[in-house]
Amino acid sequence: MNGIVVKEIKKKFNKKEVLKNINLQIKPGKIYGLLGRNGAGKSTLLSIIANRIFPNEGDVMLDGSTVFENDEALGQLYLMSERNLYSKGSKLKQLFVTTELLYGGFDYNYAQKLANIFELDLNQKFGKLSTGYRTIFKLIVSLCVPVKYVFLDEPVLGLDANHRELFYRELVDNYVKTGKTFVISTHLIEEIANSLEHVFVIRDGQIIVDGDVEDVLENAYLISGPVKEVEQYTSGLNVIGQETLGNIQGNYVFGELDSERILPDTVTVEKMDLQKLFINLTNVRGQKK
Amino acid sequence: MNGIVVKEIKKKFNKKEVLKNINLQIKPGKIYGLLGRNGAGKSTLLSIIANRIFPNEGDVMLDGSTVFENDEALGQLYLMSERNLYSKGSKLKQLFVTTELLYGGFDYNYAQKLANIFELDLNQKFGKLSTGYRTIFKLIVSLCVPVKYVFLDEPVLGLDANHRELFYRELVDNYVKTGKTFVISTHLIEEIANSLEHVFVIRDGQIIVDGDVEDVLENAYLISGPVKEVEQYTSGLNVIGQETLGNIQGNYVFGELDSERILPDTVTVEKMDLQKLFINLTNVRGQKK
Repeated sequence: MNGIVVKEIKKKFNKKEVLKNINLQIKPGKIYGLLGRNGAGKSTLLSIIANRIFPNEGDVMLDGSTVFENDEALGQLYLMSERNLYSKGSKLKQLFVTTELLYGGFDYNYAQKLANIFELDLNQKFGKLSTGYRTIFKLIVSLCVPVKYVFLDEPVLGLDANHRELFYRELVDNYVKTGKTFVISTHLIEEIANSLEHVFVIRDGQIIVDGDVEDVLENAYLISGPVKEVEQYTSGLNVIGQETLGNIQGNYVFGELDSERILPDTVTVEKMDLQKLFINLTNVRGQKK
Repeated sequence: MNGIVVKEIKKKFNKKEVLKNINLQIKPGKIYGLLGRNGAGKSTLLSIIANRIFPNEGDVMLDGSTVFENDEALGQLYLMSERNLYSKGSKLKQLFVTTELLYGGFDYNYAQKLANIFELDLNQKFGKLSTGYRTIFKLIVSLCVPVKYVFLDEPVLGLDANHRELFYRELVDNYVKTGKTFVISTHLIEEIANSLEHVFVIRDGQIIVDGDVEDVLENAYLISGPVKEVEQYTSGLNVIGQETLGNIQGNYVFGELDSERILPDTVTVEKMDLQKLFINLTNVRGQKK
């Protein structure tokens, strides 16, 4: 098939299984979210897909061919990672040139336009930038390399609210104009949820959710009301989390409700947003809050 | 008066005026937000209050006495800063002991309880921690030192959504139990807005908003509808930002509306949230989006 297929990827560091058996597909022309807690294996997975590290088992295919040690395939993938790979003494403008040597056809005009929008002076050296501006510089590079698949690992780390809003707009604008595929890993789920079409949730090295955001949220509910009625109404359903405030309880349910059950007047049903769903799915199991 | 008074603080770095003339009061027993864009001067202001750097002019008073080179006053202030001041080779447990030497009465039991909640092993060395866990460790220290005023600079940097939620709960819980004063500087405004009582917004080294969150938001509106009607209705009001989508326009207004004006049926008035207000107040002036 067209796109990227991740097949039975396993990865250990020392004796720790960081990725247990990852299977997923990334189709061209969508914006994906890769969500997971700190340490869940997101960055490892992205580094394997971009061939920065090797898995112990499994393969990553692009349009039917493995990406490992395949320069043509790798020229279609760009990973913006949390690690700073740039030399601190290099000027930003020079780093664009270096990027073009590796990936070809760098869009200098668009890079300059983005630098203006984010108020980034390209004559500075990389090492002089604050955390926020390092992220911004890396984002600009990611949007200007001529690849089909862009992977963004923590693209808003250290960005203030204004810069985050600018980035989300540029992302969607770029996506609409180019039809590129984006895979975004971020801890700020609520802010980006509206821009994502498909979501993967990774927990303890395994994919536990893989679906279109709309479909996933279709079955995510908060049922709240007096403790007894809520417990009764949600009994047997897939309750993934719980909150209480005095005599009022909220149960988070992921899965279909039972249409045969009668909803008491005192109990309300609301939809859960993506961040809340994520938190409940990835909290330590059994740890009721 | 009781509390902290920041009086006419000015600070230059090289020739750049980072703080122009800061005046504000921090009263005991409240949670304050100090909001500003990257580079606005927040961290400089907090470092001056905590006597880590000196201002060029002005004073900071605690309960009527200057805090500068005043050990008694400084023993009441704790600043958790973005910079990592801890030696990388020290074990976390050992760092608690070091903290107690400086501030006295460290709450080891509470620190252990927080470490359990955040799943942080205290036998690790500081240098081995990820960005997120360094933040968590610094948060634990901040909540366990026996001071009256706690300043948190970027307290959720690198934290995943679950850990952020845990932190917000512990913060409010600690505040209710101890009555301490917290001053929090963060880029994740929307998430913390409900926990803040009072807000300072700093722009270009000056305080541009200083008020109770409720009062501030009382006069923050989004007026949207067809371009012409919206322009007419908001003409002469304090329009701080604008968004358009085709023929629909949204004008952000900060200030009282004119109760004499008739609202056309096609125009809607909504309240603005704190993050949106912040973004509009601190965008480059004149830059309509």
